[in-house]
Amino acid sequence: MDERAALADLADRLPDAGDDCAVVDGQVITTDMLHERTDFPAGTSRYTAGWRAVAASLSDVAAMGAEATAAVAAYGAPSFDADELAAFVDGAQDVCHAVGAEYVGGDLDSHDEFTVASTAIGSAAEPVRRSGASPGDAVCVTGTLGRSAAALKLFDRGDTDRANELFQFEPRVRAGVALRPHATAMMDSSDGLARSLHQLAEASGCGFAIEAPLPIDPQVDTFAETEQERRDLGVFFGEDFELVCTLPESDVLEAREATPCPLHRIGTVTEDGVTLNGEPLPDQGYSH
Amino acid sequence: MDERAALADLADRLPDAGDDCAVVDGQVITTDMLHERTDFPAGTSRYTAGWRAVAASLSDVAAMGAEATAAVAAYGAPSFDADELAAFVDGAQDVCHAVGAEYVGGDLDSHDEFTVASTAIGSAAEPVRRSGASPGDAVCVTGTLGRSAAALKLFDRGDTDRANELFQFEPRVRAGVALRPHATAMMDSSDGLARSLHQLAEASGCGFAIEAPLPIDPQVDTFAETEQERRDLGVFFGEDFELVCTLPESDVLEAREATPCPLHRIGTVTEDGVTLNGEPLPDQGYSH
Repeated sequence: MDERAALADLADRLPDAGDDCAVVDGQVITTDMLHERTDFPAGTSRYTAGWRAVAASLSDVAAMGAEATAAVAAYGAPSFDADELAAFVDGAQDVCHAVGAEYVGGDLDSHDEFTVASTAIGSAAEPVRRSGASPGDAVCVTGTLGRSAAALKLFDRGDTDRANELFQFEPRVRAGVALRPHATAMMDSSDGLARSLHQLAEASGCGFAIEAPLPIDPQVDTFAETEQERRDLGVFFGEDFELVCTLPESDVLEAREATPCPLHRIGTVTEDGVTLNGEPLPDQGYSH
Repeated sequence: MDERAALADLADRLPDAGDDCAVVDGQVITTDMLHERTDFPAGTSRYTAGWRAVAASLSDVAAMGAEATAAVAAYGAPSFDADELAAFVDGAQDVCHAVGAEYVGGDLDSHDEFTVASTAIGSAAEPVRRSGASPGDAVCVTGTLGRSAAALKLFDRGDTDRANELFQFEPRVRAGVALRPHATAMMDSSDGLARSLHQLAEASGCGFAIEAPLPIDPQVDTFAETEQERRDLGVFFGEDFELVCTLPESDVLEAREATPCPLHRIGTVTEDGVTLNGEPLPDQGYSH
């Protein structure tokens, strides 16, 4: 069974766990495990690892439209180097400060493979779910798509400074809070835009008609040799942690003004089917 | 640098992380990473793993005298077997229910080694710290010591049914809440009684005079061949998740009546030095 099938299998047992965060008494909580082999390519600094691991959880808080309160991380590694640990904690603290949260520590574990489990908590009286999109709503996405895909290409090429910079994304917590009064459904794009749209479609019982141009990150153009590759890196690759949301057409301008990062309208909610420029957009993406 | 040195190194950077949980706005949060090689001996069922991983975090909530609200876990494994996953979730849910908390899901991760990171949150307006013990206070411990040491011996012998049962300990959340009005300092005994006492002594700037008989678990007697071995398994081994606390002498009877598990008085807070029957008790224990 792969992760997706396993998650589907668990959905019935844990009905509260279907969105980006679980919700308990007006609080949201989310946890993520990342590890060297699949999440931290060679050249990833410990500062970036601390930043990115905690940022992935903060992004889930953002996806609920919640304020981020605090984060913790468990740090598993074959050995504990004081400088590496300090760099990791600096990264974790800096990303928390960037979104108004507090990094409050965690656990250390001797582990053969560098492994990080981060958890973030937040608060929202009425968190935004994945299930409220209605036909006619506008579909929007924050920031740009393909940033992490570009970072991985840079790691491959050994340009680790630029790659590390791109890997340190700012979780869209402030954008999520600004979008909360408007959004009818929201999630983050960590599995890629295409898969996110399919998940929102399933949760809301709707479809999406997406129209280019999409806000593909300019960094992607440095690598993509064809328009097809450019689209694949921007739409399917994922690991981008932007917010994908739906909101009433009449709210788009106000929401865009309130959101402290670019908010691109990319399409419209329909009755069913997920299309890009009228062609079916497959439910494919990055499997973690 | 070993884990202990690394933790000491981090203490200055993360002053809020020094107790069993971090405290943020009247909430407590704690995270723990466990993995197959060091925490789940051969024969540990996935039900027990789910129970124990989440219980370890709930024990930290208990150690602050906080009510447990919810827990999440990230589950990393080489493959996802539906029955194993369901058993893990059952164990996690059952231990949460046992202490009035809710298990609300988590994350799945493909990982070479079975690895679990659990996080628990709770609430306490005035959590109990490690730093409030005063000379003259009584020292108490809940339950019995050496239960996990006995479980590991049983796993070694292949008596996995009894071992799994012993491994599923009930976190002392209700006891922690009952002790909160009385306790001047508290922590759990996960590193062993001896190390816990040394940590409380350091945080409170005091000492401890501990007197036998200690409440060593009867299971330990099955394995210990000498009185020395019995004491080592009960006092140094750890992994027991009982509460070790100090409280005013005049509160002991009332606290004992309020606590829904045995509460043993094992000694007295002194000015300095940690002794057992008048002999220095070394600061040694299990290094995770």
